[in-house]
Amino acid sequence: MARLERIGSETRFEGRIVTVREDRFRYPDGSTAEREIVVHPGAVAVVVHDDLHIWLVRQPREPVSEPALLELPAGKLDVEGESPLEAMKRELVEEIGKEADEWRELKRIYTSPGFAQEQVWIYVATGLRDVEHEPDPDERIEIVPWPLHDLDAAIAECTDSKTLIGLLLFARERADG
Amino acid sequence: MARLERIGSETRFEGRIVTVREDRFRYPDGSTAEREIVVHPGAVAVVVHDDLHIWLVRQPREPVSEPALLELPAGKLDVEGESPLEAMKRELVEEIGKEADEWRELKRIYTSPGFAQEQVWIYVATGLRDVEHEPDPDERIEIVPWPLHDLDAAIAECTDSKTLIGLLLFARERADG
Repeated sequence: MARLERIGSETRFEGRIVTVREDRFRYPDGSTAEREIVVHPGAVAVVVHDDLHIWLVRQPREPVSEPALLELPAGKLDVEGESPLEAMKRELVEEIGKEADEWRELKRIYTSPGFAQEQVWIYVATGLRDVEHEPDPDERIEIVPWPLHDLDAAIAECTDSKTLIGLLLFARERADG
Repeated sequence: MARLERIGSETRFEGRIVTVREDRFRYPDGSTAEREIVVHPGAVAVVVHDDLHIWLVRQPREPVSEPALLELPAGKLDVEGESPLEAMKRELVEEIGKEADEWRELKRIYTSPGFAQEQVWIYVATGLRDVEHEPDPDERIEIVPWPLHDLDAAIAECTDSKTLIGLLLFARERADG
């Protein structure tokens, strides 16, 4: 399939996390259009588990009008030169104080490709050990060890897209296996 | 759980689709922080199927550097006074020329609650009939009837969060039923 081509780009807003651009595109049929695009550095998330539990977190999410959301441990790709996997390993220590021996990529998603560039790399990690960590007080994260036999209840409660996708794909693998 | 409270809000950018605000919050422990928030009107998507097929679409998504993405029929909540279900019924006609007799809500998700308000209502619709429609040439949508017995292949190809969640939840219901 012929790709669409970006033929112009104007930065409209630069914030601390997002940038908004007005880009002009040429489509394979020769037509052109302008689109408003939210540029975001991308993110990582992980299904981290042992034989009995998966480690989830609850944290306040300021943009949404609900109490703390149930989510996978996750973080933004905001350190220059760091790969997604390196970022996730760092975040796993910072958020829940664990390192993992076995890592694999589960899925790479776009959270909202109609208006935002944000991509999320979702991993599975196991082979866990505890490590020293000092929780970032600014993150207000509650660690939630969730029984693996009750993934359905986590899926029912969860409303965060990356977390739902990680839990649903992981639950499907376990059902197939 | 005590909710966090918004104690200040400043609009930093108003675009055609998104607004960016800098909001100040007070947390249950009394501390305060500022957060950059992308305001978005929200969206709807639908798993629309008969006994043999699910109707998906492929369309170019300008923010992401990939060819046309495989997605559920979907749309933004951009008509004043229209409910999410009404919006989805209108979009289903506009995008693929179908009406459906049976509708139910499958899940309501936040695509990226760390920085964006966007919420997506995901429905399941069946009992289909064709209706007259004039495709919007600006949307460049290809209609893809996908065999229901091969949902796994759609899930493997798909990278769009709302679509993955709709397909995974729908596939799980079919496996359980």
